[in-house]
Amino acid sequence: MPFIKRLAIIGVGLIGGSLALALRSNGAVGEVIGIGRGEANLRRGVELGVIDRYDQDPCSGVQGADVVFLATPVCTIAGILAQIAPFLARGSVVTDGGSVKEGIVAACEPLMPEGTFFVGGHPIAGTEHSGVEAAFATLYKNRRCILTPSLRTDPTALATVEKLWETAGSDVVLMDAHKHDRILAAISHLPHMVAYSLVNAVGGYDRFDENILRYSAGGFRDFTRIASSDPVMWRDIALMNQEAVVEMIDFFADSLSNLRRLVATADSGALETFFTRSKEQRDAII
Amino acid sequence: MPFIKRLAIIGVGLIGGSLALALRSNGAVGEVIGIGRGEANLRRGVELGVIDRYDQDPCSGVQGADVVFLATPVCTIAGILAQIAPFLARGSVVTDGGSVKEGIVAACEPLMPEGTFFVGGHPIAGTEHSGVEAAFATLYKNRRCILTPSLRTDPTALATVEKLWETAGSDVVLMDAHKHDRILAAISHLPHMVAYSLVNAVGGYDRFDENILRYSAGGFRDFTRIASSDPVMWRDIALMNQEAVVEMIDFFADSLSNLRRLVATADSGALETFFTRSKEQRDAII
Repeated sequence: MPFIKRLAIIGVGLIGGSLALALRSNGAVGEVIGIGRGEANLRRGVELGVIDRYDQDPCSGVQGADVVFLATPVCTIAGILAQIAPFLARGSVVTDGGSVKEGIVAACEPLMPEGTFFVGGHPIAGTEHSGVEAAFATLYKNRRCILTPSLRTDPTALATVEKLWETAGSDVVLMDAHKHDRILAAISHLPHMVAYSLVNAVGGYDRFDENILRYSAGGFRDFTRIASSDPVMWRDIALMNQEAVVEMIDFFADSLSNLRRLVATADSGALETFFTRSKEQRDAII
Repeated sequence: MPFIKRLAIIGVGLIGGSLALALRSNGAVGEVIGIGRGEANLRRGVELGVIDRYDQDPCSGVQGADVVFLATPVCTIAGILAQIAPFLARGSVVTDGGSVKEGIVAACEPLMPEGTFFVGGHPIAGTEHSGVEAAFATLYKNRRCILTPSLRTDPTALATVEKLWETAGSDVVLMDAHKHDRILAAISHLPHMVAYSLVNAVGGYDRFDENILRYSAGGFRDFTRIASSDPVMWRDIALMNQEAVVEMIDFFADSLSNLRRLVATADSGALETFFTRSKEQRDAII
């Protein structure tokens, strides 16, 4: 007996599609409705068995769903919720997968009609690919999913969303939205800002009248893979988590400036300590 | 008929060992002598078929070798060459695999006795692993190897070293040593400095009284893999290529500071352009 009778997924891409596949593979969901603008992608979702049927209109699409998952770009989530709110079934639970939580939770909670419930969430998983073709059932397996309940969050709705992500294989962590945004700024948003800046710097180094990126080897490719991520998505994340992103860029810039000083002054002992401390921390997370 | 009768490899680790394996797999070398300090590693090299025999004394080890490959840390290369120079066979060619070239070439050329030849080289290949156990015959396949002949380099010796790397599967490029050091600072040394700084910054972010690295996912792990590289090796590279490394850190810091400004001023259009330009450049090198 599926614990979700009808799941509506708004945004049938890597994130939304993978959740549908994970829940279906466990028999946790009765019916999955895919909602989105691009009909070709939705049709492909049906062909791939990601969704049972689709609706291009979110207002009719969410009707009768007991759980609605918003898997659209971070800056669109509150707007879509405002649109679908009057059509939500009584008792239904809405959750999202946005990488930034404080602003989304603050915007979404007041939009929920009486007897419907919002729970902010963020599965920490992804690849550099996107679209329903990129979705796979094990994307969330053994990956952390952070839920950010507020003081106003309904405990039963929270338990439903926890169960949903645990069924998808995730390791669920509850966290304050403010803390979530700082931690994500550090471990995800900052590395993306750094990778994008690095590729632009190296690609723009024109001292030798040739594109020196052609000399790059495996280390550089690994290091800059995340600079292949979707520019629009990252523009939105940077803007939605502006304060924390700027704070982390400054924090990192201090660390780099410290290293620069050690190189410039040829402080051999301190350089080795700096690199060793970094290696130890990195090796600890393998 | 092997084109190298006797090859002496000083430093039997990933770099030296992989060259030996590549040349042996092509029948390009008659005998390989491994030279190093650690006897256990050398014995393991013989067991693994990387070298035929070993000598812990570089002076006797290089005797009778027609090619000597110096695969030791960058800061030791000139010192070892000074030690072995009197024992080199007439007509022999010495080359190295150091990641920094200007200082090494300048220090090594004057040390060569009459009738022996030095050619600076740098195979752009490697993994985060080290030691003879990590060596494999295809490490250099389809990877660039930069040779940095000077105006004093003997053309026949250069041709021998070119043939050696081509036989190992490399794509050989000739380049001025000064240019090599700037390009490597950009595509390799800078990314390492950035990765080490990033791990230290994120690992040192203590606002939440817990190690936030435990929330890191695949993107962070890929991005920071190079921060697991050998601290002593990178200390030496940073010091040997000090001027170019500092120059590239400053160049990158400007790019990051530009991005910081776009985030802080919420310049949506310029942010998207910044990320798009980076993605395009990154995608072009896949």
